[in-house]
Parts: sequence; C-alpha cells; structure tokens
Amino acid sequence: MRWPRMSERDEFDEIARLFRPLTRGAPGAFDLLDDAAVLPSRPGYDLVVTKDAVVEGVHFPEGEAPDMVARKALRVNLSDLAAKGAEPFACFMALAWPRRYEARDRERFALGLAADLETYGLSLMGGDTVVAPGPLWVSITAMGWVPEGRMIRRGGARAGDLVLVSGSIGDATLGLAAVKGEIKDPRGRLIFRYRLPDPRVDLRDELRRIATAAADVSDGLVADAGHIAEASGLRLELDLDALPLSGPAASWLERQADPKAGLLRLATGGDDYEIVCAVPPGTQRPAGFTVVGRLVEGEGIAVRIGGQAVDAGPGGFRHL
Amino acid sequence: MRWPRMSERDEFDEIARLFRPLTRGAPGAFDLLDDAAVLPSRPGYDLVVTKDAVVEGVHFPEGEAPDMVARKALRVNLSDLAAKGAEPFACFMALAWPRRYEARDRERFALGLAADLETYGLSLMGGDTVVAPGPLWVSITAMGWVPEGRMIRRGGARAGDLVLVSGSIGDATLGLAAVKGEIKDPRGRLIFRYRLPDPRVDLRDELRRIATAAADVSDGLVADAGHIAEASGLRLELDLDALPLSGPAASWLERQADPKAGLLRLATGGDDYEIVCAVPPGTQRPAGFTVVGRLVEGEGIAVRIGGQAVDAGPGGFRHL
Repeated sequence: MRWPRMSERDEFDEIARLFRPLTRGAPGAFDLLDDAAVLPSRPGYDLVVTKDAVVEGVHFPEGEAPDMVARKALRVNLSDLAAKGAEPFACFMALAWPRRYEARDRERFALGLAADLETYGLSLMGGDTVVAPGPLWVSITAMGWVPEGRMIRRGGARAGDLVLVSGSIGDATLGLAAVKGEIKDPRGRLIFRYRLPDPRVDLRDELRRIATAAADVSDGLVADAGHIAEASGLRLELDLDALPLSGPAASWLERQADPKAGLLRLATGGDDYEIVCAVPPGTQRPAGFTVVGRLVEGEGIAVRIGGQAVDAGPGGFRHL
Repeated sequence: MRWPRMSERDEFDEIARLFRPLTRGAPGAFDLLDDAAVLPSRPGYDLVVTKDAVVEGVHFPEGEAPDMVARKALRVNLSDLAAKGAEPFACFMALAWPRRYEARDRERFALGLAADLETYGLSLMGGDTVVAPGPLWVSITAMGWVPEGRMIRRGGARAGDLVLVSGSIGDATLGLAAVKGEIKDPRGRLIFRYRLPDPRVDLRDELRRIATAAADVSDGLVADAGHIAEASGLRLELDLDALPLSGPAASWLERQADPKAGLLRLATGGDDYEIVCAVPPGTQRPAGFTVVGRLVEGEGIAVRIGGQAVDAGPGGFRHL
C-alpha cells in the first residue's frame, strides 16, 4: 500500500484525515499506516472477493459529483457480493485523482465513501492514491463472508429452474438516456437510479436459501441471465411480457411507437444492479422477485414478447 | 467482476484466451466466469492483503513495453507481501487499456503477467478490464498467507533494535535518471533494475524469524525506515557510510563532485524494492543484509555521513 508519503507531507496528512476514519476501527487496517492489511481466517466461512473499477467517461459521466462517484464505485462491487450471497466486510481502493481535483473534491469523495461504508457496514482497509493525468479512475476490491461452500455461483442452475429477477428492470438505462438528454425525466427518478445504484445486499440470506445460481444485473438482464445459462450449460428462455417495470419505465414504454423494441431496450440495458437468479421449479417465489423465464436443456438464449420470438441481438450492453 | 461481456464477443474471447490460463487452475477462480472468486479460510493462517496501482507517466515511463508494465505492477505488490513475511497466493487485477493498445499489446501484457505468476507461484483470480481514455492504469490486489498473528508490521520495532536493509540501495533511482538520459548506464543494469523490480519474496521466512518490524523500500530507504520508526514510536538513526551499493552505483558515486549529496540521493531515491527491517540488537545478521542504523527512544530521523549529521530533507521520493 502507498498511502503515507513522507515526501508529500500535506498529501499524507490529507489522506490520513480523509481516509483513516473509513477503516471504522478495523484492527487489521493498522490505521492505513502499514504496507498491507491483515485478515484473520474465519473458520466455517469462505471469503468472496470481487474487483470492479469505474472510469470517468465510461462508467459515469464526466464531471459527476465526487461523492456520487465514490458511492457508485463501492456499490457496483457490493452488488457482486450480494449476488453471491456474501456479507460485505472490507474493501480496498486504488484511485487516480485527475489533476483538476481540488482538496474539496477529494474531501467530498471521501465523505461519500464514508457514508456508504457506514450504510453497508464495511471497512476500508487499504489502498493507494495518486494524482495522474487522465480521467478519474477508482478501483475497489470488495470482500465478504459466506458460510463455507455456500457462495452462489453462476454455474449452479439445473434444467427446469425458473429465472427470477429482483426489483424492477430498465430504469438505469433510461436514466443514462436522460443524462444524455435523449429522454425526459421530470422527477429525476431514472437519472438517480442510474447515478446511484442500490445494491441488493438485503436479499443475500434469501438468495442463499433459494437460488441455485445468481448474478447481478450489470450488463443487462438478457446478458446476465444468459451468463447464468451459459455457465450452467443450459438454454435460457425469457418472457419479456413479465419484465418488472417501475412507474417511470412503464410510462416511457407506453409512449414508444415500437413497444417491442422498447421492451427489448429495457431488458438489454445495463446498470440495474438488481439480482437475477435461478430457483428450483417448486420454490415459493419470495416477495420482491418476478419470474421472467426458465432454464432448459440446450444452449443459447430465446426471448419472447407477446408469445413471439424476438431477436435480442448479442444481448449485452455498452457503457455510456 | 466484469470480464465476460456478451455484447463484446471478441473482447470476451480475447480476455478468456489471454487471462484464463493465468488462474493456473485455482478452483475458486471459476475460470474467471463468475461475478466473484471464493477463497476458503485457512485455519491457523491470516490473509495479508495489499493493493498498489501503477500509472503510465507516473510509475513507469510512457511507452514502456506492455509485458514489463504487467510484471512491475505485480512485483510492487509482491514486494509489500514479502516485507510482511507473507507467502503470495492470489491476485486480482483491474486495468484500463489505453485506446492505442492493440491486440498484440494486450497479449504481450498477459504473457508478461503469466510469466511472473508462474515465477512467484500465485494465481490471477479475478478482475476487470476496460478500454478507456487516458494512460495505462493497472491496479493489482495481492494476497498472501502468514501463520496466524505473524504478519510483520511496521510498528513492531523496539528501542535498541538495529536497522537492516537487504541487497543494495540506489540502483533504481539511478536507473530512472538513466531512462531520462541524465546519466549513462552503458550495460543497462541500472535501467533494468528500475524497470523490473526484484521483490524479495525469498527473504520472507528469514524476516518472520528475526524482524520486529519491516517495510519494503519503495519510497526510498530514509523514508521507509522512517515509516518503521514513526509507526513504532521511535527515533531513526541512519549511517549512510554503511549504505550497501551495487558496482554501478558505487562507480557513479565515485564520479560525483559532492559525494555526500550523491549518497543522500541514493538513500532517498525510490523503487529499490528491497526490505528494510528492525531486529533485536543481539540478532546474528543474516547473509544479504547490511546494518545501516538503529532505532532509539525519541522521534524523527537523524542521518549521518562520515560521522557528521546531514539534512536528509523530507526523506521521500516522488515518482518520475
């Protein structure tokens, strides 16, 4: 780790002031003053580790508020942990401040991260900052515990399993369109959902109880459900008439001249950060989940709207 | 994790081809096909975690060969693990390819990383790639095991402890000067040492046996020994006449009009990636280490050359 730099006493003091409180007293973080952190093994538990970076101009718009960037960077990683059924407990962060960032921007970034660490109950245990040319770059490694052998994989689904998705789908892709000025979002709900994902850590115990496989919906429902099918060696059948939509997304869809294309856009847009999972056919559907399809013998993806097959294309999603 | 992208089939195939072999069969990596990796707890051992990023134009020169960048990015992290007495076992990587990177650059990067993972015996278990504007950016999180409670901290030194440093000091800072054309390096040994650090993972068992505190020498010997003193609540006394120098560094020093300034430059230059440690006074000095000072009651840093106190300045080092 490279937080403290005696050559840059001001930077050192700033880092200490900004980030040390974010360890939230974790003893293995050594107040961010050591070369590394130490994590004792936890017998009976496995450590689940994920690492996603966010880059200005790719994963969030240029000029996004620093606190929102920090929170999004953490939350996309918490979403991965949630999908795996893991309880977040620590993170590490590397970040490149752009040269335009001033002290108040760095402070605002740290405050945003602090708020979310508190909300989700985890500690910052180490990392690295640098001022560099180029865009703001934040890489977070997040870790969580699951009971031994209980991480929910992508590849655990069986033929006949139902495909469920949590919450509602498509708001974030409309939010991105609204950020770009392509659609209206008078109450700002779509934009907010795009800017600040809500990782479904609340679902983790339920998922461990019912899911044979799970993934978070970051690349779009079709793509991420497709990942489960592919990893499980199965064929995905999705029925988009069942797609759960928020009020603003439903009302956007009503205004579309081509509702099929609209529905497909929502189902292939990214950044929802909901959970898609497979459950055995007899499972009682938990509150907050919608059945959107099933997994069968075979391979590939079949998407239906109004009872008719549609071409979902490659299914995925490109950021910005 | 965000390796597989169905929307970008070519990228997906390339990532799979390039990076999947780098898992070296680690079962918890799921062939890089899941959202996260799983690490079983290892009873009787702690996990040591470090995260350092390297940025083009800051930590390595623009246009550096891709394989060298990959290896340096890994090695600076392995150096942290070595200083903590940990045995490397896994890493995660986030990287931003610059737009100018072509397929052969990405391949060369992966091959460089593969070579070092093999050399040091660890697995790539996950991460994230993106093509982004700006410089090449590589963030690695490295993990290693230590026997429970045996991580060597910065803050464990006691008054009276000797300060030892491994190998030789100053080559990398001269190597950087040679890269910039400021000094000559006819045989290229200094430049090579700067470009490709040699993390002292070979010392880890010895360090756990003798060291009360340790750090790797990345910011310069004076700064990093100073970190140990500060974290241990002690005063550092360094005698630079004892500074271990390589042949090329000694011969550079002989040519300096002001040998004191030259010595100070070597002792405050960065990127050596040797180990500085504290050991109790009665310790038999192990082969390959040199006594360069001691820790006493008090605070601050005292540096002596030829028996006289010199001002070591803030002690630290700025990259490039």
